[in-house]
Amino acid sequence: MKKFLSIYALISLGMAMQAQELIIEDFVPSETCQPGQEYPQVNSQGYVRFRVYAPEANSVISSAGLGGAMHGTPLTKNTDGYFIGTTASPEDPGFHYYTINIDGAVIMDPGTNPYYGCGRWASGVEVPASDKDFYTERLDIAHGNMSLIHFPSNYQGQQLRPAYVYTPADYGKNPSKRYPVLYLQHGWGENETSWPVQGKVAQIMDNLIADGDAEPMLVVMTYGLTNNVKFGDRQGIADAMKALETVLVDELIPYIDANFLTVADKEHRAMAGLSMGGMGTHAVTLARPEVFNYYGIMSGGIYTPEEIGSPDLVKHVFISCGSKENPDKVTEAVDALKAAGYSAQSYVSPGTGHEFLTWRRSLHEMAPQLFK
Amino acid sequence: MKKFLSIYALISLGMAMQAQELIIEDFVPSETCQPGQEYPQVNSQGYVRFRVYAPEANSVISSAGLGGAMHGTPLTKNTDGYFIGTTASPEDPGFHYYTINIDGAVIMDPGTNPYYGCGRWASGVEVPASDKDFYTERLDIAHGNMSLIHFPSNYQGQQLRPAYVYTPADYGKNPSKRYPVLYLQHGWGENETSWPVQGKVAQIMDNLIADGDAEPMLVVMTYGLTNNVKFGDRQGIADAMKALETVLVDELIPYIDANFLTVADKEHRAMAGLSMGGMGTHAVTLARPEVFNYYGIMSGGIYTPEEIGSPDLVKHVFISCGSKENPDKVTEAVDALKAAGYSAQSYVSPGTGHEFLTWRRSLHEMAPQLFK
Repeated sequence: MKKFLSIYALISLGMAMQAQELIIEDFVPSETCQPGQEYPQVNSQGYVRFRVYAPEANSVISSAGLGGAMHGTPLTKNTDGYFIGTTASPEDPGFHYYTINIDGAVIMDPGTNPYYGCGRWASGVEVPASDKDFYTERLDIAHGNMSLIHFPSNYQGQQLRPAYVYTPADYGKNPSKRYPVLYLQHGWGENETSWPVQGKVAQIMDNLIADGDAEPMLVVMTYGLTNNVKFGDRQGIADAMKALETVLVDELIPYIDANFLTVADKEHRAMAGLSMGGMGTHAVTLARPEVFNYYGIMSGGIYTPEEIGSPDLVKHVFISCGSKENPDKVTEAVDALKAAGYSAQSYVSPGTGHEFLTWRRSLHEMAPQLFK
Repeated sequence: MKKFLSIYALISLGMAMQAQELIIEDFVPSETCQPGQEYPQVNSQGYVRFRVYAPEANSVISSAGLGGAMHGTPLTKNTDGYFIGTTASPEDPGFHYYTINIDGAVIMDPGTNPYYGCGRWASGVEVPASDKDFYTERLDIAHGNMSLIHFPSNYQGQQLRPAYVYTPADYGKNPSKRYPVLYLQHGWGENETSWPVQGKVAQIMDNLIADGDAEPMLVVMTYGLTNNVKFGDRQGIADAMKALETVLVDELIPYIDANFLTVADKEHRAMAGLSMGGMGTHAVTLARPEVFNYYGIMSGGIYTPEEIGSPDLVKHVFISCGSKENPDKVTEAVDALKAAGYSAQSYVSPGTGHEFLTWRRSLHEMAPQLFK
């Protein structure tokens, strides 16, 4: 047994050394670093290197929130009090949530800005994608604003609920110009900040609109009421979807139409969402066919022709996911919709899974199809 | 020596027990807690209780960022893996930054939302103040919006800089109505998010405007460019103030006047700031007397009649601080301004120091004096 372990250890060591040789030492700070912080870093291959100062700690581990190569990267203590370590393999391009575990305490990496995901404020790392220009802020164009609003709600007691509203660069310049609205929902464990921050909605929409590739529109993002729901709790999910229907359709939409320059009709309204926000979109659009003219689901299921009922009820359906998810299901669903006479589009994000690059790309593909 | 230590230990224990007896066990989660988190907690006396799960850690300490009773509260490990501890004395009412130290790693308390201060994302705890109504969100009034904008800047290379713009509830409803603007600066170690989040600008302004106590106005908050400056580096501070003058007056103000419904003249412009933002206000207003008609300094120095030059150059001067800072200096400065023919007002926040309750109260006192 001892001999077996030794051989196994040598093989492991050999594999680790082989992997180590391949890592190119061109690491730079992730764009998610706080001002003045140098870690986490990423290299041109997608490896992520973590460094955390914890001079008296016994163990520091970096853990991804939702899958990925970063799952459980143990960091090694240096003599200077820093723990340091590199992922065992390259990460997919795009944004990844993670946390740091110091002696059993699950915390944010003090190196990064905060990102709401996994049901908490977490750390994030950004591996630049080859197509990153579409979500990168440009200096040569006009920029819209991202507004935090508070709308009155009576669901679960009278209160004010937050939402973010993206308004395009020309919004309000001509007070008689009115805009269509996309209602865009986050996934489980996220909140109203997730699309604006890690989803880069303003950057994507600013670029599309400046290039004439999408109609100027508002994008409204509120909390989907799903973070207390457990996976597999069908009744809990159904209740949350019903709550979202009430808050979104009966409370938020009237507030937006009363307080922003919108065209307040079905023809100028879309709803889309990622993951559990796609499930919410599915539930709300089908329950209220008179409200939205465009439906979008990203990594969150499909529509069937039978569910919608008639191509007359929806102008366009968009369904997407990452290539590492279930792309066949997405393309087959869209083929079935088309065969039944619907206008529909599928999109599969190459080389990505259930993460935000899939959804940034999905928004970039979907938005040009809306309100045309 | 051993006997002396034992006696000392007994006296310490006695003092600790006496203090412990006085603590009322009515702790409730701080309003700064993340969704689903129960700690930190505060009681009716202002004691703060921390709890952090760190089963394998040796030492966990809570440390205030800038003074206060929380400075160095050691937490005690329970058998369930939680470290728990209560401040040795009550905290002042209002908002306090703090961090957690786990085995030498300085991190955010995983229990709270993130607040930018002390040059990093930090944790915060809120001790409710007896006068908290003025900064508490109300259900019975209309609410303004807080917009994140990106304005083009050429200082230190062409780039987009962030700013937050508070617009009052009636903004844009009548496109011919135009508004005055207050430019409001944060302190050292903070950024453009600090006034909107821990300063509760929207809540304070919404309440004042709804009650008819302040004119509807925009409040614009950008980064003051001071976080790389070391205390005592006079040249570094002077350079940062000059940079702020350029970015604020030559870049931000023209962008705001071009993109928002403002009255673009001196009569409808104010500048104020807290701490180092007060120093920035002092420097920028005196360097550009043609730009602002109202000056405000909160816990950041004073104006003398000689510096301003003439009562004709400024409509009103506001100077404030906490009662635990240097109130005599503030009231004497305002007395001197008044004696020299200036319209001026001093305000001393009762029972507070160099912290955000002083500055929330200062905004609440100053805003009604502007643009009347």
